[in-house]
Amino acid sequence: MAIHLVQYNPEIPQNTGNIMRTCAATDIKLHLIKPMGFSLDEKSVKRSGANYINEVDYTVYENWEEFVEKNKGGKFCFCTRYGQKNHAQMDFSNPNEDYYIILGAESSGIPKEILRPYFDNCFRVPMTNKVRSLNVSNVAAILAYEALRQQEFLDLWTVEPFKGADWVLRDDE
Amino acid sequence: MAIHLVQYNPEIPQNTGNIMRTCAATDIKLHLIKPMGFSLDEKSVKRSGANYINEVDYTVYENWEEFVEKNKGGKFCFCTRYGQKNHAQMDFSNPNEDYYIILGAESSGIPKEILRPYFDNCFRVPMTNKVRSLNVSNVAAILAYEALRQQEFLDLWTVEPFKGADWVLRDDE
Repeated sequence: MAIHLVQYNPEIPQNTGNIMRTCAATDIKLHLIKPMGFSLDEKSVKRSGANYINEVDYTVYENWEEFVEKNKGGKFCFCTRYGQKNHAQMDFSNPNEDYYIILGAESSGIPKEILRPYFDNCFRVPMTNKVRSLNVSNVAAILAYEALRQQEFLDLWTVEPFKGADWVLRDDE
Repeated sequence: MAIHLVQYNPEIPQNTGNIMRTCAATDIKLHLIKPMGFSLDEKSVKRSGANYINEVDYTVYENWEEFVEKNKGGKFCFCTRYGQKNHAQMDFSNPNEDYYIILGAESSGIPKEILRPYFDNCFRVPMTNKVRSLNVSNVAAILAYEALRQQEFLDLWTVEPFKGADWVLRDDE
């Protein structure tokens, strides 16, 4: 039971690399649904994700149907401009649930045929009308941390195990 | 009175471009404190920010002292690994306050000499020990949207003014 990030039809490797970095930073699982605009061997994913690809638990699916089949039992939540509530109104708080937070292709989002049966689980990130959208890796980070906030950040480090950051800041080195 | 994002010593133009996109999407003001690792004329900022640089209210400062002098009266809040609380424990909820959310250089963060007088306003984004940090544009997005959440997203569009998204999703086009 966990929080999951899902990219439907990812097109830009730098974005997926950055999302992998977020996943490594949060122990969130990543699911990538084909078609993809790049190969995971490409240098640009590895560069963006630094070496984080090896720190991420990720799965690649041939198509939407395979993703649904292998993850039934989870709650599918869709980030889309068509959402009629905002992301903070979504309930991600139950640690015994599997939440799949699904992000669309950079160019075209998630097809309506996929969204239609899940209309009540569609949400929107509030924004002005000055941009078409936010960057998808930024959206992934916003949503991952909203879900984590609702679960009180699980066992992530909220303080680094220094000898004491108070000491670090107040010393005269 | 507003929410502000501040980059101290930004080094990577693509990151600042993405932060500009977030600012355009949220009407958040951006403050850039020199030294900077790039010029704002550079193609890479413009490409990353698409054409958003013209949609963003931003100011460039020669140094930290100039930033402090010109924005006294605001509340300075620092994102740093040395923070002893998490970002969701910060109070960004007062719409009559100016919150300056300050992010450090990609390579080295914010100098301790700057942090020291503001120790109680330092916070940390919780994460695992598998990464050194999150991408700075992702952190900017997480923090901007946490502050906006606390202010109930102000007057951002939480629903797009379609004829009715319900209609959009349920039609048969």
